Amino acid sequence: MKKNIFRRGPSSAALTPRSPGALSPSKALDAWLKRTRALLEKSLRTAVPAATTKPGTIHRAMRYSLLAGGKRLRPLLCCAASEACAGTARAALPAACAVEMIHAYSLIHDDLPCMDNDDLRRGKPTSHKMFGEGIAVLAGDALLTEAFAVLAAAKPLARYNASDLVAELALAAGSRGLIAGQVADLAAEGRKPSEPALYFIHAAKTGMLLRASLKLGAMSAGGIKTQVAALDRFGFALGLAFQIQDDILDATQSAKKLGKTAGKDAAAGKMTFPALFGLEKSRLLAGQWTSEAIDSLKTFGPRGATLRHLAVRLLQRDS
Amino acid sequence: MKKNIFRRGPSSAALTPRSPGALSPSKALDAWLKRTRALLEKSLRTAVPAATTKPGTIHRAMRYSLLAGGKRLRPLLCCAASEACAGTARAALPAACAVEMIHAYSLIHDDLPCMDNDDLRRGKPTSHKMFGEGIAVLAGDALLTEAFAVLAAAKPLARYNASDLVAELALAAGSRGLIAGQVADLAAEGRKPSEPALYFIHAAKTGMLLRASLKLGAMSAGGIKTQVAALDRFGFALGLAFQIQDDILDATQSAKKLGKTAGKDAAAGKMTFPALFGLEKSRLLAGQWTSEAIDSLKTFGPRGATLRHLAVRLLQRDS
Repeated sequence: MKKNIFRRGPSSAALTPRSPGALSPSKALDAWLKRTRALLEKSLRTAVPAATTKPGTIHRAMRYSLLAGGKRLRPLLCCAASEACAGTARAALPAACAVEMIHAYSLIHDDLPCMDNDDLRRGKPTSHKMFGEGIAVLAGDALLTEAFAVLAAAKPLARYNASDLVAELALAAGSRGLIAGQVADLAAEGRKPSEPALYFIHAAKTGMLLRASLKLGAMSAGGIKTQVAALDRFGFALGLAFQIQDDILDATQSAKKLGKTAGKDAAAGKMTFPALFGLEKSRLLAGQWTSEAIDSLKTFGPRGATLRHLAVRLLQRDS
Repeated sequence: MKKNIFRRGPSSAALTPRSPGALSPSKALDAWLKRTRALLEKSLRTAVPAATTKPGTIHRAMRYSLLAGGKRLRPLLCCAASEACAGTARAALPAACAVEMIHAYSLIHDDLPCMDNDDLRRGKPTSHKMFGEGIAVLAGDALLTEAFAVLAAAKPLARYNASDLVAELALAAGSRGLIAGQVADLAAEGRKPSEPALYFIHAAKTGMLLRASLKLGAMSAGGIKTQVAALDRFGFALGLAFQIQDDILDATQSAKKLGKTAGKDAAAGKMTFPALFGLEKSRLLAGQWTSEAIDSLKTFGPRGATLRHLAVRLLQRDS
C-alpha cells in the first residue's frame, strides 16, 4: 500500500529474481525472521546472569528490560549483515546480544524521570516504575557494562580481534554517538526545530547504534573493508528512514498499537520530522532514505536480499 | 602513630632493607607518587574528548568529574602493579585511565538523588548539582562507555589480548561486581547491620574495582598467572582495609577535611564497620587486612615495595 512512496528504489518484489516454486520475498523474510529471532531470544536469555544470581533485584531488572520482546531490529541487522558477508547468524551472536543490551540500557535511562519521564514501554511499566529509580539507573549501567563482557568473550575472529569490535561499539554508544544524540535531544526540547539539529539528533541517537550493529555483524563474519563500509552507509540511511517512520508513528498511532505513550514527542515539544516537515514530506523522506539504503547494498548481490527486504518491511510497519 | 595497630605485618620501615644514602621508604613513595600522578593526570586529560567536542555539555560534564582530582588510588595501583611485574607505569596507562573512568562514573551515579543524594564531592558540587540530573546520568554512562574504548585501544600486549582486559574490567564493574555492591548497599539502608552483608557490600563495591585495577596493571606488563593471582589477593585485602578506613573517616572527620558530606553514612542508616564493630575494633580490622594485603606481595620481592608502602600509607591517611 505504501509502495508508492518509493521514489528512487525498486519495488520489494523486484529485488530478487525468483525461480518458480521459490518462496516470495515476503515469505522468505518471514521465515528468516522467525528462525533468527528464535536464535536471538535464546542467546539473549543466557547473555545476562540468571534472575537467581545474587543480588536478585538487579538481575531481575536487567532481564525484565532485555527480555521484554521488542522488534530486535539491531541484533537482526547484525545477523543479516554477517550473512551478507557470507558468514552465519550464529557467528554474529555475541555482537548481536551486545548491541541489543546497549539498546535496552539506553531505553531504561531515556525513560527515567530526569530524561523523557515515560511510564510505558513495550506495553509494560518502565523499569523505574517497576523497580524504582535507583535500581533502574543501575540496571541500565549493568546492561551497558555486561554488553562489553559479552562482546569481549567472542571467539577469535577471522580478520578482526574482539577488541576491534569493542572499540567500534564503544565509539557508537559513547559521547560522540548514541549519548551525543540523547544530549542534543534533551537540549532541543521546546526549541525551534531546525533541519541540521534534527538530522544530528537522529543520526547520533538512532543511526550510530544501527550502523555499529551492521558493522559488527560484518566484522563477526570477517567481512572485508569495502563490505563494512557499504554496511555503514546502509546503516546511516536506514537509521534515518527508521527514525522518520518512528516520528510519523508517534504522531499518528495509538499508545496501544505502539506499546508506549503516543503523541509524547509533540507534547514534550520534541524536534521531530513531522513537526519540521509535516507528515506528507516526512513520508516522502522516509521512502527516499530507504531507497538510499537499498542502493548501498549492490556490492552484496543476492546475499544482500535479507537486508533489502528488511529495509522495505521497516518502512511498511505500523508500530 | 597508628603503627601499633599492625598485629601481624612488619612495620613500613622494615619492609625494604635500605643502603646508606638511599631515600627513606616514605620519601621514595612520595617521589613515585609525584612522578606517577603527573603521568596519570596528563593521560586522563587526553582519555576523554576535549570540552570543545560537540555536544559540549556532555564533554564538560565528563571532564568536570574525571579531572576533579581525588586520590587516583585505582590508577596508581594499576601502575604500581605493572611495575611489580617488571613492566612500566606507562604500559599500564590505558588500563589506569579506564579504571579511573569507571570509578568517576560510579561516583556520579552514586551521588544522584535516587541513590545517595549527595551535594558535595571532592569539595565541589556533585555532577547533578552542576549540570542537572539528566546530564549527570549521561555523563556517567559516557565515562563508563569510553572506559572500554580506551582499554580496547591498548597496544598489543605480551601475554594477553586487549579483549582479556576488557572482559576483566566488565566483570569487575558489572552486575556481579561494583554494581552488585551498590545494589546491596541500597537494600541494606536502615536494616540491621550484619557481618556477611557488610563484607559483601564492601568486597563488591570497593574491592572488585581495586582488584581489577591491580590485575589489569599486571596484565598490561605481561605478568604471569601467579603474579596476577597474588595481586588479586592483595587487592581483596587492601579493598577491605581501605573501605574500613573510609568508614572510620566518615564517622570521625569533618566534611571540610573529606571534601564530601561527613557523617552521612550514620545519618542514612548505612551499614558500616564502625556501626557494626565500633571504632576500636574497626581500626584493628583495618590494620589486620592491611597486613594480610602486604603478606600477599612476597612473591614480588623488592619490586613489591611501592605497593607495600602504598598499603601502609592508605592506613595512615586522614582524608
